[in-house]
Amino acid sequence: MSPDTPRVLSATALRGLMEQVFMTAGCEADAAGVASDVLLEADLRGYSTHGLLRLPTMIRRIQSGMINAAARPRVVTERAGSALVDADRALGPVGALFGARLAAHKAESAGTAAVGVVNGDHICMAGYYVEQIAKTGCVGLITTVTQPLVHPLGGTERLLGTNPVAIAIPIRGQEPLLLDFATSEIAYGSVLTAKARGEQLPPGVALGPDGTPTTDPGLAAQGALASFAGHKGFGLCLFLGLLAGPLLGAKVGRPLGQAVKEGHYDKGDLLVALDPGAFTDPGVFQDSVKAHLEEVKSSRKAPGVADIRIPGERARAERARRLRDGVPVDQEVWREVVAIAGELKVSLPV
Amino acid sequence: MSPDTPRVLSATALRGLMEQVFMTAGCEADAAGVASDVLLEADLRGYSTHGLLRLPTMIRRIQSGMINAAARPRVVTERAGSALVDADRALGPVGALFGARLAAHKAESAGTAAVGVVNGDHICMAGYYVEQIAKTGCVGLITTVTQPLVHPLGGTERLLGTNPVAIAIPIRGQEPLLLDFATSEIAYGSVLTAKARGEQLPPGVALGPDGTPTTDPGLAAQGALASFAGHKGFGLCLFLGLLAGPLLGAKVGRPLGQAVKEGHYDKGDLLVALDPGAFTDPGVFQDSVKAHLEEVKSSRKAPGVADIRIPGERARAERARRLRDGVPVDQEVWREVVAIAGELKVSLPV
Repeated sequence: MSPDTPRVLSATALRGLMEQVFMTAGCEADAAGVASDVLLEADLRGYSTHGLLRLPTMIRRIQSGMINAAARPRVVTERAGSALVDADRALGPVGALFGARLAAHKAESAGTAAVGVVNGDHICMAGYYVEQIAKTGCVGLITTVTQPLVHPLGGTERLLGTNPVAIAIPIRGQEPLLLDFATSEIAYGSVLTAKARGEQLPPGVALGPDGTPTTDPGLAAQGALASFAGHKGFGLCLFLGLLAGPLLGAKVGRPLGQAVKEGHYDKGDLLVALDPGAFTDPGVFQDSVKAHLEEVKSSRKAPGVADIRIPGERARAERARRLRDGVPVDQEVWREVVAIAGELKVSLPV
Repeated sequence: MSPDTPRVLSATALRGLMEQVFMTAGCEADAAGVASDVLLEADLRGYSTHGLLRLPTMIRRIQSGMINAAARPRVVTERAGSALVDADRALGPVGALFGARLAAHKAESAGTAAVGVVNGDHICMAGYYVEQIAKTGCVGLITTVTQPLVHPLGGTERLLGTNPVAIAIPIRGQEPLLLDFATSEIAYGSVLTAKARGEQLPPGVALGPDGTPTTDPGLAAQGALASFAGHKGFGLCLFLGLLAGPLLGAKVGRPLGQAVKEGHYDKGDLLVALDPGAFTDPGVFQDSVKAHLEEVKSSRKAPGVADIRIPGERARAERARRLRDGVPVDQEVWREVVAIAGELKVSLPV
């Protein structure tokens, strides 16, 4: 089949392809599985900016030595409710999942735990890791800092990361409740996607390299994105960068940008787990959460609104649809994946 | 002097007056001092919606028995990195400060600690408590849930709180870096202030009781406020309410509104402290924070922007000005305070 054919892949085929590519590039089965799970989960929920789109960069970084395919994350230092993990330059998902499991495990006895992960790469879908924490019954929170892509409020230079935050809350008999957003107006991946598709950006979300507003994704990719929500969003973006960078002994801003250029993604991921049992009866907690969601969901709607949407609701509906109907893959992304698979002699799904 | 005279009070006079009012209403010196410190700090920074304006309600709640002036907050349950505190229906500042000190103390050994405070009243300026945590060298985070005042995105009923979040980061040789914002578009206090001053609200921040948009603060006070920043802000507002309410065994939404009506502010405050020493060298951390703020502050400005403002910067300048020139007090607020002082036979500052 030609790389130009528009593609819809089944979840199984997509995951299998990614796993093969990771393994052929040098990853062990565990690492390849984890990374494939995270990318697949993003693609299933319609977060295509954090799915297969990321595979080529991850493979290139393995090939350049920036990512260590055989990494062994290890605990550098720990206390009852905290730990610092050196991810050994692992694939982002490998380091972050290690941190998530450790945070949940430590919170079980300490009540709360914060785990910092350094020397890992881009973690892709932040929400994935806190969902894993929530599946143990704990509340999970993660934030991470990215290389500088966002300008300060009132400024024009890219100095802040797109610094996402995700929180997951366990709910009895259901998938966890998930909040997951970037503190930039739009994700950097959306800029790359718009560029690949020849689409324009919405106004007000980006500046070009000359510091003037632009809707051209090509200019935005060399310029800077806006943080979300005025001074509140700018503040949150700035603070999360400090917590996922310097607090963990990692970098932020220009020094982080410089480190990435030199082949070391010297940022951090901060994961926090809170055990509801440290505060209240976990069953009562989960029932109260359900009751609040129910009163919100069933409350009076504004004119013209068909449905009040709980965070993550649309993504879960999309996930069910794509599990059934397959995952559409952008032509530009597919072309790159085909090229990488070809190089590595990984056969494409039929 | 007449209650109609426009007032500017020195910080000392304002604090002294509040302390006397609290003590005469039944508070011990410690509690009166803490509550006065918090209200003064808000007024000094120009957050008049969280300062003296709150005093009358606090006193009325002491008089009705909703607030216990002689409360003794106590630890109900704890683990290495967590605790639940029953504030014994204390003034909000008394319970929250107890929680902040406990969180900082526990983080010193556990690395991280999360403390839930229940059975406390409205905490006024959220940032105050995390600044106290930051002064011990830890990063501090707080969130709290308020009675339902905010409508869901796409809805019109008030079901969510204005749920603020505040984060403070210690900086060597300086006051802590502080982020402090409500997850509603505007604070409920701003509605009350606009009403007292006969001013209109900006468009897009509130609905009237019939669910239609309004700029009339009187209608907004009976209606509902918008959460900030579209679906991201709605999500954050919703999640923070779940973490400060149900996670701590407290209420959120309609049940919280009902409890307040029945004379029990059955909400919670969640405080988290992170000891930088659990992850990295605290001095290096603080130097990196300073360096990042400096690169942001000194970066290229957008046309027409005189200054890139770091969160909290304007409030600190205002604080210095008001310490020097005094704190202006709204006429309507002053009238209420004069009435309360009269009842309690507390003499007004000359």
